[in-house]
Amino acid sequence: MAKRVAIIGSGASGLAAIKCCLDEGLQPVCFEKGTDIGGLWNFKEEALPGFASVYRSTVINTSKEMMCFSDFPIPKEYPNFMPHSLVIKYFRLYADNFGLLKHIRFRHHVDHVKPREDFAQTGQWDFTYTDEEKGQTTTEVYDAVMVCIGHHVYPHYPRDSFEGINDFQGKTMHSHDYKDHRGFENKRVVVIGMGNSGGDVAVELSRHAKKVYLSTRRGTWIVNRVSDHGLPVDIINGRRAELAWFKWLPLPLKLKLAHDNLNKRFDHALYGLQPEHHFFGQHPMVNDDMPNRIITGALVIKPNIKRFTETGVVFDNDTVEDDIDAVIFATGYRFDFPFIDKSVMKVENNHVNLYKNVFPPKLDPPTLSIIGLAQPVGAIMPICEMQSRWATRVFKGVDKLPPQVVMYDDIRQKAVAMSRRYYQSPRHTIQVDYAPYMDELAEQFGVRPNFKTMLMSDPRLAFQCYFGPCTPYQYRLMGPGAWEGAKEAIQTQWDRITFPTKTRPVPAKSGGMPGILKLLILLVLVVAILSKMF
Amino acid sequence: MAKRVAIIGSGASGLAAIKCCLDEGLQPVCFEKGTDIGGLWNFKEEALPGFASVYRSTVINTSKEMMCFSDFPIPKEYPNFMPHSLVIKYFRLYADNFGLLKHIRFRHHVDHVKPREDFAQTGQWDFTYTDEEKGQTTTEVYDAVMVCIGHHVYPHYPRDSFEGINDFQGKTMHSHDYKDHRGFENKRVVVIGMGNSGGDVAVELSRHAKKVYLSTRRGTWIVNRVSDHGLPVDIINGRRAELAWFKWLPLPLKLKLAHDNLNKRFDHALYGLQPEHHFFGQHPMVNDDMPNRIITGALVIKPNIKRFTETGVVFDNDTVEDDIDAVIFATGYRFDFPFIDKSVMKVENNHVNLYKNVFPPKLDPPTLSIIGLAQPVGAIMPICEMQSRWATRVFKGVDKLPPQVVMYDDIRQKAVAMSRRYYQSPRHTIQVDYAPYMDELAEQFGVRPNFKTMLMSDPRLAFQCYFGPCTPYQYRLMGPGAWEGAKEAIQTQWDRITFPTKTRPVPAKSGGMPGILKLLILLVLVVAILSKMF
Repeated sequence: MAKRVAIIGSGASGLAAIKCCLDEGLQPVCFEKGTDIGGLWNFKEEALPGFASVYRSTVINTSKEMMCFSDFPIPKEYPNFMPHSLVIKYFRLYADNFGLLKHIRFRHHVDHVKPREDFAQTGQWDFTYTDEEKGQTTTEVYDAVMVCIGHHVYPHYPRDSFEGINDFQGKTMHSHDYKDHRGFENKRVVVIGMGNSGGDVAVELSRHAKKVYLSTRRGTWIVNRVSDHGLPVDIINGRRAELAWFKWLPLPLKLKLAHDNLNKRFDHALYGLQPEHHFFGQHPMVNDDMPNRIITGALVIKPNIKRFTETGVVFDNDTVEDDIDAVIFATGYRFDFPFIDKSVMKVENNHVNLYKNVFPPKLDPPTLSIIGLAQPVGAIMPICEMQSRWATRVFKGVDKLPPQVVMYDDIRQKAVAMSRRYYQSPRHTIQVDYAPYMDELAEQFGVRPNFKTMLMSDPRLAFQCYFGPCTPYQYRLMGPGAWEGAKEAIQTQWDRITFPTKTRPVPAKSGGMPGILKLLILLVLVVAILSKMF
Repeated sequence: MAKRVAIIGSGASGLAAIKCCLDEGLQPVCFEKGTDIGGLWNFKEEALPGFASVYRSTVINTSKEMMCFSDFPIPKEYPNFMPHSLVIKYFRLYADNFGLLKHIRFRHHVDHVKPREDFAQTGQWDFTYTDEEKGQTTTEVYDAVMVCIGHHVYPHYPRDSFEGINDFQGKTMHSHDYKDHRGFENKRVVVIGMGNSGGDVAVELSRHAKKVYLSTRRGTWIVNRVSDHGLPVDIINGRRAELAWFKWLPLPLKLKLAHDNLNKRFDHALYGLQPEHHFFGQHPMVNDDMPNRIITGALVIKPNIKRFTETGVVFDNDTVEDDIDAVIFATGYRFDFPFIDKSVMKVENNHVNLYKNVFPPKLDPPTLSIIGLAQPVGAIMPICEMQSRWATRVFKGVDKLPPQVVMYDDIRQKAVAMSRRYYQSPRHTIQVDYAPYMDELAEQFGVRPNFKTMLMSDPRLAFQCYFGPCTPYQYRLMGPGAWEGAKEAIQTQWDRITFPTKTRPVPAKSGGMPGILKLLILLVLVVAILSKMF
C-alpha cells in the first residue's frame, strides 16, 4: 500500500509537494486552511492574520524562465516578470495539468503534528486537524508529513522597541496589512525597513503621498529586474560559467566588479543607500524604480529612527520630520511552525536546525520535511520542487540520509559560512544561492546534470546549460524524474523570454560594421577605460 | 523715455522676458489671461481649453542645474528633477526676488497685435486686450512686443483621421485633458503617441489600469533622467568637451556609440520600441520607468492603429484588441499665434519663419519677438532667458539684426539641416540643440564664454566650463548682463547636485585598489570587449 503523506499548505511549495508525491506513487493529502490555492500569491483585498499576502501591485522578482516548475514551462505569452494575478494563474495551470486539486482539503486547519508512540519503528504521525466548515476536529495517522507554509505568515513587528512609539498619534501598521496606496494620498509617511517590501511600499506611496521617508539602519544594495540590455536580471546573472570563473577571483576583485556594476546604474553612496556590508553580505533588494523616485525628491532615504514624538520622528542623525501621518513597519517576517510537536524541532530566534533546509536531523526515520524554508537569491519555486522531489524519495526509502553526525556537521559548516558572509541578523538564517543550492539538492538523488557525459552525448545542450541561464529544466535531463520535454524546454527558453515583448514589428538591425570602425571603437574604449582607472 | 514692452504670457518665458526688460531699462507690461504665473507649470485640477497644463504627477525632464535661469540658481535643497509643484515654487522665488509680479496684469486676454500705420518709422504696435474682470476691451500703443505663450496650448488632435473612430463606443480624449489615473482603474486603455506625454500617461496608467497599449507608428529612443552613476542625464551629456570631439566622429561611429549606450539599459528592438530613424533623427523620449512596466506585461507596445471598431482597435499588424474602454491621444500640440496680425507672420503646418527662432525676418524695425518657441534636447528656461536678453537689446537698439537677406539665408540653412537630420513631421520644426543654440544666441550680443581669454585669466574656471556640464551660469561670466555670482555658481554647482540626496550618512568609500588589481581588471575588461566585438 502506498504511503500516505500529509501536506500542510497549498501555496507554491504545497502544490509542488503534491505533484512530487504523485510522481513517486505516494498518496498526498493536502490541508489548506484557506479556501483557495496559491498561498502568498493569492491576492486578497484585505490582509488576514495567519495568511501570507501580496499587495495589489506586487510583481514577482524572479523571471518566468527561472521561477517555473522544472517540467512545466510558463506559457510564452506571459511576461518575464509576472504580476501576482499571473503567478497564481500559472499555479492553476500547473494544478489542473497534474490533477492536484482533488488532493486538497480546503478550510482544514492543522492543529498538531506529533510522532506516534511507535515512531521509531513506523515513522508515523498523529495528525490532528479541524475541518472548519464542519467545526470537526479529527486525528488521522500519516506515514509522512510535508510542511509547506512558507515564511511570510508571521509578521516581525518590533513596534514596541522604538522609544516614544506609544506617544505617537499617527497610524502605525505592518506592511503585512498594506494593500495599496489608498488612504495615503497626500499624507506624510515613514516606511521602516530595507527589504523588498519596504522598497515596494515606499516607491509606490511616493507616487501618491505628499512625502515618503524610507528609514534604514544599514542601507542596501539594489538590483533591477530589468538588467543589461533589458534582459531579466536572473537570466543575466548566476550562469554556471560565470559562477565557475567568478569564484576563483580574490574577494576584493569580486567586490570591485560587483560594486562598480551596481553603482553604474546609480551611485549607492550618492543616493544615501550605501551599506557598510558588501554586496554578498546581505540579501539584496530588487527594485526597479527607487533611484527614479529619489531623484525627484518624492522619496527620501533616512537613517534609523532614534525615537518617536507625538507628531513625528527623530532619526539617528538627529534630523526631525514632523507632521508624520503614518508609519509602516516593513520589518519582514519570522517563521514558525506552532503545530509541530516541540519534541521534533524548535524555532529559536528565527533559526531552526535543518539538514539542507529540509530535514530535522534528529528525526529517525526521516518522515517529516520542511519545504520552501529558504531565502534564495533567485527563485523559490524550483527550490520547493527540488526539495519535494528529494523528500518524497527519502520518504519512499529509495534515497537515504547520511548518519546524524554527518548531518549535524553539514548544518554547522553552513552556519559558519553564513555567519562569515552575512551580517548577523534574524534575517540571515535561511539564505541560499540558487544554482549551488539546487545542485546540492540535486546531487542527493542523482539529478544534477553531468556535464562530462553531456559534453560527449550532446555538446550543444551542454553548452546551453553551462553558458546559458541555469533554468530549472536542467534538473529534469537525467536521473529519477527525468522529463522527456526538458531538452526542448531548454532549447526554446530564449523564445519564451523574447516572445512577450514582440508586440510591434521593428526594423531589422543593421548588419555588422566595417572592421576599421570596430578597431576605432576598441581604441576609444581602451582609452576611456585607461583614463578612468589611472 | 524708456520703451514700453508688451509681454504676452507669464510662464517661464514671460517671467524671463519681464526680468530682461527690467535689466535693460525697458518698461515691461505683462498680460496674463489666467489668474497666476507659471503657465504650463501651474497645475490645475481641471484642464482648461486655451491653457497649457501638466498632470498631477508631472516631473520636469531637465535637471535643476541645467534648467535654472542663469543668475538665479535653484536652492540646493530642491531635488535634481523637480515635480511641477517645485518648478512653480522656483518661478515664484524668481518673480519675488526680481520684483516681477507688479508688472503683470492678470486676467488680461490679448485680442490683437498689429503694427501701427507709422510702424516703419516708430516700430510701434496697436495692442488690443480685454480686461476680463471688468469686461473692458482697450487698445494701447507699445514700442515692442514679446510673445511668451509657449507651444503647449493648442492640442494636435487628429482624432477624425482614424477610420471607424465615430463607431467606437469607448471614451476618447487628448492627453491635454488628462490629469491622473482616476477614472481609469481596471480599464483597458490605448494611448496613441510616443512623445513624452504618451510615455508618461501610459506608464502611469499601467499601474492602475487593467492593461495599457501604447501605439506608435515610428517607435522612439528612450533616455532616462537617472543616467550613469545616478547623475542627471543632462549633467552627463552635452558637455562642451564631449560635443567637441563627438562632432568629428563619422556618423556611423556616432550612431554605434549612441545606440549601444541606449540599448545597454534595454534593447529597444527587444522591447518593440526601436524606430527606423537613428537617435539624432527625432526628439527622444525621456522616461525612467517604461522598460520596467513593459517587462511586467502591464504596458504593451503596439504599432499604429489601422482602424477602430465599436469596441476596440485593429493595429497595423492586424492584431486586434477588444474591450477597449478609453483611447488617449497623446499626439502633441501645434503652436499658433492667433492674435498676431497676419501681415506680420503666418504659421503654416506648424512652421513659421523666424530668425534664430525669435524674430520674424521681414519686420523692420524688429520690435516683436517670439520667446520660447523652441524644442530643445535640454532645458527650455535658460533658452527663453537668452532669447529675451537678446531681444530686449535689439529692441533697445544696442544690438542690430543683420540684413533681411542674411536672415532669410540663415533660416533656409537651418531648415535644410533640420530636414536632413530629422524625419519629416510637424513635430520637427522648432528643434534646437541646447549648447550650440545657446552659444549661437549668446554670440549675437557678446555673452558667449571666450575660452581663449578665460584659459589665460582663470584656467580652473575654463576647465570647469569646458569639461563640466554646460550650466546657464556660463553665459553670465562676460559681456552685457554679466553677473558677479556666476563664477561662484559654477564652482558650487556640484554641491547643489549632490546635496538633495545626502539624507542619510553613508560609510566612506574605501580608498584605492592595489595596482595589481587595477591591471587585472583592465585585462578582464579588454578581454570582455574583444570577445564581444569580434
